[in-house]
Amino acid sequence: MIIILKPETTHEDAKQLVKLIEDHGVKPLLMPGIERLVIGAIGEESALKRLSTLPSTLIEAIKPVTTPYKLVSREFHAHDTLVNINEHFTIGSEVFSVIAGPRTVENATQIEDIATMVKESGASGLSGGTFKPGSSPYSFQGLGYEGLKLMRAAADKSGLAMISEVIDTRDVESISEYVDMFQIDARNMQNYALLKSVGQTQKPVLLKRGLSASIEEFLLAAEYIYNEGNENIVLCEQGIQTIENAARNTLDLNAVAYIKTKSHLPVIVDPSYGTTIRELVTPLAKAAIACGADGLMLETHLKLNESVSDEYQSLTANQFKRLMLELEPFISAAGKRL
Amino acid sequence: MIIILKPETTHEDAKQLVKLIEDHGVKPLLMPGIERLVIGAIGEESALKRLSTLPSTLIEAIKPVTTPYKLVSREFHAHDTLVNINEHFTIGSEVFSVIAGPRTVENATQIEDIATMVKESGASGLSGGTFKPGSSPYSFQGLGYEGLKLMRAAADKSGLAMISEVIDTRDVESISEYVDMFQIDARNMQNYALLKSVGQTQKPVLLKRGLSASIEEFLLAAEYIYNEGNENIVLCEQGIQTIENAARNTLDLNAVAYIKTKSHLPVIVDPSYGTTIRELVTPLAKAAIACGADGLMLETHLKLNESVSDEYQSLTANQFKRLMLELEPFISAAGKRL
Amino acid sequence: MIIILKPETTHEDAKQLVKLIEDHGVKPLLMPGIERLVIGAIGEESALKRLSTLPSTLIEAIKPVTTPYKLVSREFHAHDTLVNINEHFTIGSEVFSVIAGPRTVENATQIEDIATMVKESGASGLSGGTFKPGSSPYSFQGLGYEGLKLMRAAADKSGLAMISEVIDTRDVESISEYVDMFQIDARNMQNYALLKSVGQTQKPVLLKRGLSASIEEFLLAAEYIYNEGNENIVLCEQGIQTIENAARNTLDLNAVAYIKTKSHLPVIVDPSYGTTIRELVTPLAKAAIACGADGLMLETHLKLNESVSDEYQSLTANQFKRLMLELEPFISAAGKRL
Amino acid sequence: MIIILKPETTHEDAKQLVKLIEDHGVKPLLMPGIERLVIGAIGEESALKRLSTLPSTLIEAIKPVTTPYKLVSREFHAHDTLVNINEHFTIGSEVFSVIAGPRTVENATQIEDIATMVKESGASGLSGGTFKPGSSPYSFQGLGYEGLKLMRAAADKSGLAMISEVIDTRDVESISEYVDMFQIDARNMQNYALLKSVGQTQKPVLLKRGLSASIEEFLLAAEYIYNEGNENIVLCEQGIQTIENAARNTLDLNAVAYIKTKSHLPVIVDPSYGTTIRELVTPLAKAAIACGADGLMLETHLKLNESVSDEYQSLTANQFKRLMLELEPFISAAGKRL
Repeated sequence: MIIILKPETTHEDAKQLVKLIEDHGVKPLLMPGIERLVIGAIGEESALKRLSTLPSTLIEAIKPVTTPYKLVSREFHAHDTLVNINEHFTIGSEVFSVIAGPRTVENATQIEDIATMVKESGASGLSGGTFKPGSSPYSFQGLGYEGLKLMRAAADKSGLAMISEVIDTRDVESISEYVDMFQIDARNMQNYALLKSVGQTQKPVLLKRGLSASIEEFLLAAEYIYNEGNENIVLCEQGIQTIENAARNTLDLNAVAYIKTKSHLPVIVDPSYGTTIRELVTPLAKAAIACGADGLMLETHLKLNESVSDEYQSLTANQFKRLMLELEPFISAAGKRL
Repeated sequence: MIIILKPETTHEDAKQLVKLIEDHGVKPLLMPGIERLVIGAIGEESALKRLSTLPSTLIEAIKPVTTPYKLVSREFHAHDTLVNINEHFTIGSEVFSVIAGPRTVENATQIEDIATMVKESGASGLSGGTFKPGSSPYSFQGLGYEGLKLMRAAADKSGLAMISEVIDTRDVESISEYVDMFQIDARNMQNYALLKSVGQTQKPVLLKRGLSASIEEFLLAAEYIYNEGNENIVLCEQGIQTIENAARNTLDLNAVAYIKTKSHLPVIVDPSYGTTIRELVTPLAKAAIACGADGLMLETHLKLNESVSDEYQSLTANQFKRLMLELEPFISAAGKRL
Repeated sequence: MIIILKPETTHEDAKQLVKLIEDHGVKPLLMPGIERLVIGAIGEESALKRLSTLPSTLIEAIKPVTTPYKLVSREFHAHDTLVNINEHFTIGSEVFSVIAGPRTVENATQIEDIATMVKESGASGLSGGTFKPGSSPYSFQGLGYEGLKLMRAAADKSGLAMISEVIDTRDVESISEYVDMFQIDARNMQNYALLKSVGQTQKPVLLKRGLSASIEEFLLAAEYIYNEGNENIVLCEQGIQTIENAARNTLDLNAVAYIKTKSHLPVIVDPSYGTTIRELVTPLAKAAIACGADGLMLETHLKLNESVSDEYQSLTANQFKRLMLELEPFISAAGKRL
Repeated sequence: MIIILKPETTHEDAKQLVKLIEDHGVKPLLMPGIERLVIGAIGEESALKRLSTLPSTLIEAIKPVTTPYKLVSREFHAHDTLVNINEHFTIGSEVFSVIAGPRTVENATQIEDIATMVKESGASGLSGGTFKPGSSPYSFQGLGYEGLKLMRAAADKSGLAMISEVIDTRDVESISEYVDMFQIDARNMQNYALLKSVGQTQKPVLLKRGLSASIEEFLLAAEYIYNEGNENIVLCEQGIQTIENAARNTLDLNAVAYIKTKSHLPVIVDPSYGTTIRELVTPLAKAAIACGADGLMLETHLKLNESVSDEYQSLTANQFKRLMLELEPFISAAGKRL
């Protein structure tokens, strides 16, 4: 529910109204608009109904929020949200964001060399898995905290922000000491205990869309994080499972354009995971830029045959550098810069 | 990899071979077959290759396990597994298992009355959510430990086994003091931290199939639990998301018949969640029996309009009793009894 | 729109009303109910609105038909439709129907031997493709009219009804001289020119569900046939494409139970095509019976390795006979007989 | 199978070899490569095997074609195919193609006004349905031949090429007198009788991907047309059905990039049908250009509320003009021009 205040309402009046709303058992948010004071109110139907008794002298209109997600909706918050990852790196602005790295951190040399290459090519963030269980328990499960240390060193040395995955509520606090942004992967998109847990920090969260999650479920998962108090959320489209099996996943760029109309959160695209075929990464990265994405997440490695778990979609250093050059005309066409 | 020993091999020889395999960095399992001693060996490709140097005097044949899942595969373990939930209730035998209860535990009267009705109708297990986040953070999230206490009391009073969901690794130990079987829901089917955590207990686990999980992913999720040492796993088919939207999910009974050919674990079916339409629950429950399921999980409540979160698929007491009567000829036709 | 007449209305009055409705540019159908005269009216929204001016002296109530399909809906026609294939074979009654045969007719001996075996095992219909293009133009395309002749001879000799596919509007008339029931396959389910063409005959039509057709689209395709005047339609569920790839298709038994609540047309199930795995055919055939199907369509052949295009799901003669025996207890449990 | 001839082989030798291949019961195609003479050979496995006895003096290598589609594959024909629609309009070149028009032709004024507007905005082709059955038999079915006449007049007057749908084999010949390119819609993509029928003409064919067709099935459908002798095929990606329901279809741009690597045929994209939401048409049109499409197909009309069957995705004249302007920077970035 959105409560639009009359033009003459002062901030002082608004604060009192916020308190009054709280007394009705509803969670209020004072939303500083440009022209008009607006209060958002979130709660159960029955409690929201009681708001109709609020003093009409201050209130111009009360409008329902029509989507099941509220806080992440543009109805609640019309302007694009910028998420600051660190002092050099903001996602959602006119600077197009690129995050890149290996699927899994393997050793100090690997992650340092990739970080250097990635930084030189124009990326701002370093990604890489350290807690990384595959679908089989017999696959490589990641280096854990040892990997986080190696990755932190490589990120600091190269001047990149560091993004890595969290999979267990028990690790949220300790991993937050290493990363600049948590990553929550597709398989945990509806792990609500984990969403709440990262929502109780102020660390930015990169939330990847589940492979069969609808856009509504995706935005509701973001709402779980936001509702705990953490507004620093970046959404990542990375493909859904469909009847098409040429590629393992089908990148859903409809979703990117659609989410940009419905939510104020920044959206990036992972064409590596979203295509799983190396030859498709570059054309789909261009397409992601063209349809309005705020950034890209890309899988890269240095030497093709030495990696432990990198896969078909992973770009070599040369492929990655070439891709970054080829993206530029499309970033310009989209009115952004690298 | 399965190592079949020569007929003349003694148990003593086999144990020494098991030790030898361990020395090769491979995890061995002595599998007492009926006619022949068999050793299963699980590990990385490279380690398994080294087994070719084992003494050929004792070994008749070494066969690869062709599926990515190993321990839960029939190739490894040909006979049906029986899972004992408590002293009165075993899943996987010729007694057809029925678990029923409300979507969420609401109060003492509700859960007691349902438990009584469910027991009288012939069910053996009581289900009900107490940690139960919906897809929206604004939906009812369950009563938590308070709900577990109410449910335990109702289960004990009525003589039913108790099944309830765990969603957070931090709760595994304390919830295990209440339940007779953990439930892991579709959304956490690939929450590997949680799978490992329940795998480190000996408490039975009801693992529900993810809404877009392939059968292979489903069995690999079970493998995660089994691989930690907990063999007490019951699989539950409850529908997948498809292009059909008449019902929210499409119950995949192909999967039930297929899993019975590939895995030794018992499989039950949840037609309430798998159809989400009350009128379809009874015909699909019959179909589940007919295609070889070991049991059913059903959602029921007592009064239609008073429930907090029960939904369209939930059966009233009368509907549930009638369903149990209607199932009997099909249970008989399948060569089982209630 | 359904117009329920007052109890005292005579048939004469009803006929005059039917004429009046026709004058409003709407297509009326006098539907002889058991207790009350009912008129169905189908047309565009605007024309239907004009019916509100009908004389209220005869009319008790006017109810909208809520589904987009009208003539095939239970709202229009509450009682189950029986479809007479020939004088010995009716689908939709308490006699459970079995249609079986090879994927494609290959030669006289093959189709005669299969017909004999199928008849002896208790089936009533012989199926087999003669116009049968595969997804590749290089696959066997069927024997055409030559195949129809061989099949007709085999059907007559064995006393089976004959069902074969039509794929081209130009062949509808000439194929109707051979078959007892047309088959329209999944790939032509929305070939509206073909649907209209078979709708203009009175020959029964077996309509198979498209691999990605929703139930609503399926029933609308049947409506296309019915709307041309042919009411002899049998629906066939044979699986949809989903994310599950263990079997090529996922048999959707939810759809069978759901269609039985929404439409008066008989529904049969093809577990051969719907599972594409031989081991799953028998359990899913049982499940189809249990959830309310009126019959089965099964693929069978005589010798496993000599067939031109039969595939993994095709049953050998022995498997088919055993299946028929195993189905009996489930047919009895469902209150039907073979 | 591809037969690469030795460098010294003359055209005369090659022709004799072609004849020899024909004698083996295989269909040969002399494929004039730039550096080397190449012969393609298509037929059944057994016949192809017999080719191993061909005289080795002329042959350098025989390579299998690894895809099930042959003639439309890049392995057979490495260079991009250009399809000439009329003397002014070629699809597949460095000129980016735009086809636009209403969903259905309604009357002379409507189609003339749209043609004028579309031409002025830079499009080269006029689309519009005249044989256009909807999924319901009660929806508007199109004006038929009357519509084709109106459309032909409008196309001639404005100087646009004309594209319209064929749905019945009986109409192929007469419709070919009106259109510059046949359109075959998603629902008829596997109507093999129709594919063969248009394949027997030399009229270009726009083949739209079925809503649940895999890329392989899509290319095999094109192969059906090509195999009859018609090489003038343009593929059109227009979305597939997935679990996402925000938009009715999910535009699959992975498919565009993938098909460009596998087939020499031009590929255009229909973002109107592929998104079904007006706000998404422009961003997805840009994305289609960016990932390598050769053109676009767009639905437009002139006045929003007067159309009979245009839907949510249809652009108004102003929206269409603005879209064309916004596409230009992306067309340039892709190295093409309008």
